[in-house]
Amino acid sequence: MTDQHRTVVIVGGGFGGLYAAKALASFKIPFTLVDRRNFHLFQPLLYQVATGSLSPGDITAPIRSVVHGFSGAHVLQDEVIDVRAAAREVVLQSGAVLAYTHLIVATGSRTSYFGHDEWKEQSCGLKSIEEALTMRQRILGAFERAEKETDATQRDKLLTFVVVGGGPTGVELAGAVGEMSRSTLKHDFRNFDPARARVILIEAVERLLPTFPPALSHSARRALEELGVEVRLETRVTGIERGRITLASARGEESIEAETVLWGAGVTSSPFGEKIATAFGAERDRGGRIVVGADLSISGHPDVFVIGDLAHATDATGRLMPGLAPVAIQQGQYVARRIRGTARPFRYRNKGELAVIGRNRAVCDLGWIRLSGFPAWVIWAFVHIMNLIGFDNKLLVMVQWGFNYVTRKRGARLITFEPGPD
Amino acid sequence: MTDQHRTVVIVGGGFGGLYAAKALASFKIPFTLVDRRNFHLFQPLLYQVATGSLSPGDITAPIRSVVHGFSGAHVLQDEVIDVRAAAREVVLQSGAVLAYTHLIVATGSRTSYFGHDEWKEQSCGLKSIEEALTMRQRILGAFERAEKETDATQRDKLLTFVVVGGGPTGVELAGAVGEMSRSTLKHDFRNFDPARARVILIEAVERLLPTFPPALSHSARRALEELGVEVRLETRVTGIERGRITLASARGEESIEAETVLWGAGVTSSPFGEKIATAFGAERDRGGRIVVGADLSISGHPDVFVIGDLAHATDATGRLMPGLAPVAIQQGQYVARRIRGTARPFRYRNKGELAVIGRNRAVCDLGWIRLSGFPAWVIWAFVHIMNLIGFDNKLLVMVQWGFNYVTRKRGARLITFEPGPD
Repeated sequence: MTDQHRTVVIVGGGFGGLYAAKALASFKIPFTLVDRRNFHLFQPLLYQVATGSLSPGDITAPIRSVVHGFSGAHVLQDEVIDVRAAAREVVLQSGAVLAYTHLIVATGSRTSYFGHDEWKEQSCGLKSIEEALTMRQRILGAFERAEKETDATQRDKLLTFVVVGGGPTGVELAGAVGEMSRSTLKHDFRNFDPARARVILIEAVERLLPTFPPALSHSARRALEELGVEVRLETRVTGIERGRITLASARGEESIEAETVLWGAGVTSSPFGEKIATAFGAERDRGGRIVVGADLSISGHPDVFVIGDLAHATDATGRLMPGLAPVAIQQGQYVARRIRGTARPFRYRNKGELAVIGRNRAVCDLGWIRLSGFPAWVIWAFVHIMNLIGFDNKLLVMVQWGFNYVTRKRGARLITFEPGPD
Repeated sequence: MTDQHRTVVIVGGGFGGLYAAKALASFKIPFTLVDRRNFHLFQPLLYQVATGSLSPGDITAPIRSVVHGFSGAHVLQDEVIDVRAAAREVVLQSGAVLAYTHLIVATGSRTSYFGHDEWKEQSCGLKSIEEALTMRQRILGAFERAEKETDATQRDKLLTFVVVGGGPTGVELAGAVGEMSRSTLKHDFRNFDPARARVILIEAVERLLPTFPPALSHSARRALEELGVEVRLETRVTGIERGRITLASARGEESIEAETVLWGAGVTSSPFGEKIATAFGAERDRGGRIVVGADLSISGHPDVFVIGDLAHATDATGRLMPGLAPVAIQQGQYVARRIRGTARPFRYRNKGELAVIGRNRAVCDLGWIRLSGFPAWVIWAFVHIMNLIGFDNKLLVMVQWGFNYVTRKRGARLITFEPGPD
């Protein structure tokens, strides 16, 4: 293959990949973007798909539509199955071979059970549309089964929801399930009161949202408790089996009878990371992330960049950059500038952190200001709507949120794929 | 079980079941509605989910929300697995037993390949959300694969879409795929022009929409041809295998190389019909429908009613009533009146038939007026939006249609469930 056919190749159409694509297009640098899926997923709102407020289509945008107006853009729905470092080529599932001038790897992360793969069966993560729909099915399905259950102990078990992980995902999930049982489903069942549902949030360290200032952690906890969520801090999960979760804390071991366990605790790097590490002899951290330098390239391979959740990048103080959308976005934009020729190292500009609790509260730390309650929620809603990629989705999400807000009804409560069609 | 616990039992939450529920509630007659799914599906817009204009959540409403305000309503997400005619009881999958005063069976129909079950693998029907998403995945997936295909013959095969059946479903599907290839996807691919896609519509009889007046059949055909759809009349399908469909007509046999076959041709009654027929010794027609009398009850069982697609009901002239939403709705309402005590037989008031073609044309026969083109489309859009059950869905669908109309972009183009999450 001649060098004329070489372009920048981006693997992954998440926040990192798409913002790299956008910046490259603005510099008139041609690129090929490869993703296994045909859509970009707006991950921060995935928990709303899981809890029935939004439809999958509301938080996704076809990659082709997003890239549509970009000059020099080429999109392939395909999977990279091999990397030839010496030839500077990637091999796709379809058999096609792409030669690259620069390779940008942005394949993200997926749910991890910290080595307890056996927990996967009885629990459910939240990294993909499929996981979100499975989670929705389990939550709504538990209420449906409770309506039919005549045994009181069994019914209590069906109405017990344990959320593992006190980071933003876990806090948002617990708040949404609490809200759902107290408001949304209020009059929908006859054999029990949905408000009797227990929602228990488990966090291993001594406060929720450990990356936020302590005052906001406490606001978040209070807001969750007002929604009826039981918060258990300094508590670890030691086992998940069918209908039961075992916990350990300073008070000893405890087991809770619960039919539904929602996993918001851990992610690990995408399986493609291993291939990249092998091909380029890159170092990986304990979470499987690939260690990159100050310019986000792999040591010894200045034309291969890793960005987003898959990258182990540190700031000037040596602190690992968190797996957040703004980090991936800024890294994507930086890499495009780097390819155009900048010599500066990457610097992350932290614009703040946000987490939402229930229907109309949030906590937000913008650095110069810290807010909780309804004002924080307004900022949260504004930031998320403005960042939804694709104009129609913004409109739709606004309509649906507005509607949910006024009526407390959930718009997307369908349980799909079970039982199967016949 | 004592008679105090007996209620009217409705099986199925489609148009027939829900309208029966609504009417019973207005008469203050308590009932239990059982459905395998937790949502009502607005079938007439299913083709828009299949072609990426709408999300599943846009055309579904949680049965519990719909029934929410009805007094005396009880909803169970469950499946009826047995019927005890003598005891007047139904047995549910969960083990619960429901004793009924009256039984309303409204379980509808599903895709049928006229005895050619082997066609199922290479084709895709359109009766459930799952089928619609599979269809969407196949259609959009074919375009994605064409972008990667280097062999011109293979690419042509990927860009050939055959729609079987010239009734409303087939006409709507063919129009939507034609529209998609000519407008929506126009600038999205680099290696081929989506407008080169062939869309072929197959109908066995001598005109499209055979239940409509002939003038409208011709309007529909012209409108489809303007969207680039090839219409083949008096043509039967004789075989569907991977990548190829075989047709027979007066001109002889012909085979077309096509990767995607969309099945809009046949439905058969739901499998539950067989159980009902056996339990009550009911007669079934060739399509598996249960033959009912003038009051929609099964002969010899005046307290057991069959309505909607599962019912073989005839009008005063002996003509079989078609499997359309308005028929099911009126039958549901009638059965509730019958249970309250009316002695009159069921009479179907035909309010007309509608079918849409592409983005802004339709044909409509309201009896007193026949329209085609844009005026018919306006009526079609109005009727469908007004009938969407659940207020938020109406708003959402309006926003999404409005958006599609202005931009010709499809809002829900995500291909889910392939490749699997990992």
